[in-house]
Amino acid sequence: MKPTQSLLLSSGSRLLLLVPSRRRSTGLRGFTTFKSKMASEAFAFGPYKIDPAEVFYTSSLSFAMVNLRPVLPGHVLICPRREVKRFVDLSADETTDLWLTAKKVGGQLEHYHKASSLTFTIQDGPQAGQTVPHVHIHILPRKAGDFKENDEIYDAIDEKEKELKQKLNLDKERKDRSFEELAQEAGEYRKLFL
Amino acid sequence: MKPTQSLLLSSGSRLLLLVPSRRRSTGLRGFTTFKSKMASEAFAFGPYKIDPAEVFYTSSLSFAMVNLRPVLPGHVLICPRREVKRFVDLSADETTDLWLTAKKVGGQLEHYHKASSLTFTIQDGPQAGQTVPHVHIHILPRKAGDFKENDEIYDAIDEKEKELKQKLNLDKERKDRSFEELAQEAGEYRKLFL
Repeated sequence: MKPTQSLLLSSGSRLLLLVPSRRRSTGLRGFTTFKSKMASEAFAFGPYKIDPAEVFYTSSLSFAMVNLRPVLPGHVLICPRREVKRFVDLSADETTDLWLTAKKVGGQLEHYHKASSLTFTIQDGPQAGQTVPHVHIHILPRKAGDFKENDEIYDAIDEKEKELKQKLNLDKERKDRSFEELAQEAGEYRKLFL
Repeated sequence: MKPTQSLLLSSGSRLLLLVPSRRRSTGLRGFTTFKSKMASEAFAFGPYKIDPAEVFYTSSLSFAMVNLRPVLPGHVLICPRREVKRFVDLSADETTDLWLTAKKVGGQLEHYHKASSLTFTIQDGPQAGQTVPHVHIHILPRKAGDFKENDEIYDAIDEKEKELKQKLNLDKERKDRSFEELAQEAGEYRKLFL
């Protein structure tokens, strides 16, 4: 285990002062559920340190993690290991690795969640809804009726307002889930890639 | 020019009987505006024949075309040349080529439209909003306020209804643009990649 990782594990309370509130290291909790190279790696999502217990798949240049505020079950994020703000700034190798990872993860999660389609989205830059300045692909397993249109409301409003429904706002504020919930979900997904 | 392409150019009216109404060959119109390898290539988008005049960038395994029903200015589509329904069915080479193309096109169109962000989305399967069963990346140049929330309407409705705004519905029906408009836009974009 590297010294930095040791610090992360041994002094969680101190790190809480340094790490923004959205993602905090929660010490040793969650490390009892898996033993792998992943558990000793360090992951960052923009300015946030990601607890390895939230990561369920890694490749040479990318990692996949569960989502603190999922829109739908199985809504996960794929990130390049290198902190890069905009998609255009990824190298060709990073671009390839990121999307091959997303394809693999999407296929497994669609099956796991008994879904029948997938949404893949990059909100690339703040005007596209990006709130964490680190490229990330949103993957959402989709099922019939998961975002069913409410005709009673929307029939009455004009076309411009209907367009609001098309807004990609996957980074919007939602209620945080507990670390235990995140680690449990990541543990389930990790088994899909053994 | 290949025989099939010759047929496409010489008997547009006959092809109208074979090609669904959403995308029709419009014969020789548009071919006066560009002379390139692109103009003699055949492109398909699911069951639809795509007029080369609507295609503004090609790579070995992908092509980029303007959109019959754009949500925003610069809303274009990137497709694999091979007709593949689901993202997971693309080969590694096709996946790589598709996203390197999307990155290049997105960067150019963001600049061209004086935008500051990009949305990249694949509606992968019918439950994700896909209406044409051929993998395609939607790219939308984004600007501040382009999909501004209308608080007067949405403050009054509950959280479940607010989620409707997150629905990706980029394949929904919108008013068709004319072929001339499509060809003109493709001509503009083509210049960005000379």
